[in-house]
Amino acid sequence: MNKLAIGVDLGGTNLRIAAVDDQGKLVEKVTLGTQVSLGRDHVIGEMCDAIQSMSDKYKSSAALLGIGIGVPGIIDMQTGLVRESPNLPDWVDYPARAAVEQRLKTVVILENDANVAALGEKWLGAAKDFPDMAMLTLGTGVGGGIVLGGKIWRGANGMAGEMGHSTVEPDGHLCGCGNHGCLEQYASATAMVRLAREAIAKGGAPALSRAIQSDPEFSAKSIYNLAIQGDEDARRIFRYVGRCLGIVLSTMVNSLNLPIYVIGGGASSAWEAFSPSIFEELRLRSFVYAATAPDDPLAKHEGASAHVKPGPGPKTIITRALLGSDAGLYGAARLPMLTDK
Amino acid sequence: MNKLAIGVDLGGTNLRIAAVDDQGKLVEKVTLGTQVSLGRDHVIGEMCDAIQSMSDKYKSSAALLGIGIGVPGIIDMQTGLVRESPNLPDWVDYPARAAVEQRLKTVVILENDANVAALGEKWLGAAKDFPDMAMLTLGTGVGGGIVLGGKIWRGANGMAGEMGHSTVEPDGHLCGCGNHGCLEQYASATAMVRLAREAIAKGGAPALSRAIQSDPEFSAKSIYNLAIQGDEDARRIFRYVGRCLGIVLSTMVNSLNLPIYVIGGGASSAWEAFSPSIFEELRLRSFVYAATAPDDPLAKHEGASAHVKPGPGPKTIITRALLGSDAGLYGAARLPMLTDK
Repeated sequence: MNKLAIGVDLGGTNLRIAAVDDQGKLVEKVTLGTQVSLGRDHVIGEMCDAIQSMSDKYKSSAALLGIGIGVPGIIDMQTGLVRESPNLPDWVDYPARAAVEQRLKTVVILENDANVAALGEKWLGAAKDFPDMAMLTLGTGVGGGIVLGGKIWRGANGMAGEMGHSTVEPDGHLCGCGNHGCLEQYASATAMVRLAREAIAKGGAPALSRAIQSDPEFSAKSIYNLAIQGDEDARRIFRYVGRCLGIVLSTMVNSLNLPIYVIGGGASSAWEAFSPSIFEELRLRSFVYAATAPDDPLAKHEGASAHVKPGPGPKTIITRALLGSDAGLYGAARLPMLTDK
Repeated sequence: MNKLAIGVDLGGTNLRIAAVDDQGKLVEKVTLGTQVSLGRDHVIGEMCDAIQSMSDKYKSSAALLGIGIGVPGIIDMQTGLVRESPNLPDWVDYPARAAVEQRLKTVVILENDANVAALGEKWLGAAKDFPDMAMLTLGTGVGGGIVLGGKIWRGANGMAGEMGHSTVEPDGHLCGCGNHGCLEQYASATAMVRLAREAIAKGGAPALSRAIQSDPEFSAKSIYNLAIQGDEDARRIFRYVGRCLGIVLSTMVNSLNLPIYVIGGGASSAWEAFSPSIFEELRLRSFVYAATAPDDPLAKHEGASAHVKPGPGPKTIITRALLGSDAGLYGAARLPMLTDK
């Protein structure tokens, strides 16, 4: 009998539900809109109806392993409370797990959306050959997830993995979290647009200025398009994005010495534009990276001031995500396969 | 029969060797000088002689569990190479583990000195009730260690735990590791003295200036003595030290969500002077800390701009180390007790 799990990716815009088998094969995927404005009870109700109908469809032909739900926001894993969610404004100290379990009459696993994306990339994506990995998700914000020994590292309260709120510039831009100079303020899609607006406001960024005036949907992608056309102002923005990512990755590499770090999320499409700066910063800032860098063209060592040369052990890999927006769906479906039952 | 392990703390100045039983009782401790100038073969020889003589002394009355050695520097755990050591200048890509094992005709465990200090504090010190913890050791440099599930988190190459080389100020003071603005440049004993010299050079730090002129052994302790006497220039230095520690701890708390973080090493004696700034930064910079802060006088929340209030789950504790300079000895002795045999 086929073994299936249901994975849910609850976003601020889309609600996506998938049935995935234990080999990682996507059996079915459904996408609905998330009607945040109708309130959390409505959102939970729609989600539970969709889960129930998918569950009913497969329960006679497959063994259902469980339900995993990726939620944007801070989740207290012990209580199942969503402490706060940037995309679901009325989810403040909301007992989301209890609400779902009451409706579905079964146990579900709630998890932070960036954590499930990391788990998805670990299971089936860029990090599938590695037991330990970390991921940064560049979207509206910057999410993060750490997987150790094949499982999400949740920490004492289930709040681990928030590398998007690592301090890059101690006196930098105010972040929604209350800190100044978080990575999220320099490497999210939102931040890229802000950096473009700042460059335009300073004057002397003519192509960006024209683009923002002519394009009502001006976005990180618009900046990327200019960057690949060679516009120096757009390229400078991505160099700065890469620098900030490189600073945080250097601290992560020095602290955790993981074999692989994956960069995903919508804004990671600009990888070609920002990744050279990531490697430049890593070579200069992380002696652990200098000692373990792979021998690839993007990771030359001539710039490294650290004296430690690459050794014979495992290499440190920094790479793009492979699963795109499905990483979270796969990771959510993976959750019930990993519980200690 | 009593079960004993031998723990070694190989420092740039002192070589200390202890027999510790499996309950954490110190049976014997020997301190020798480390004669670094006579070269690594001499140092290894002296160390092995002392280990052998302690081993001979107890081998008839106790079961010897093994030998653990804490070494300052970057160690490749797979090969047993000391890649580099700040205090042992000729230990560059030196096969230290093989050299010791050849002399002693037995297996030994080599480990970074800050990692063993963390393990010691986890086993018998400030973190003994917690499975997961991290430690920062403020000495000549700033060392770090992470313990997960009761074991040192070594990472892919055995180089994890180097939080002393987290970037605090991206364009800050050049560090020996090649990076600019590492925590080590702001929170080590060495850095505290440099910060004092910088304050004096700027003028207007009269008490520090008098102290440095009259005291040939002017040190972090001298600055601390002035700070507790109320000297504002000395106090400002420790506020800055605490700020930098707080920035790195905020990133660690947000990333790892561990239940406890321990600050040790000689310069942690100035805890009273720098710790208020640590808590101030944590409240402002880490929403995970804000959501999990213990209800203690040093951790009030009125300064927190994060909206997440403390929840019902486990608390995040930031505290001083308890074992002083013996942490590394205990941790080294603990190493052979934890191997999967």
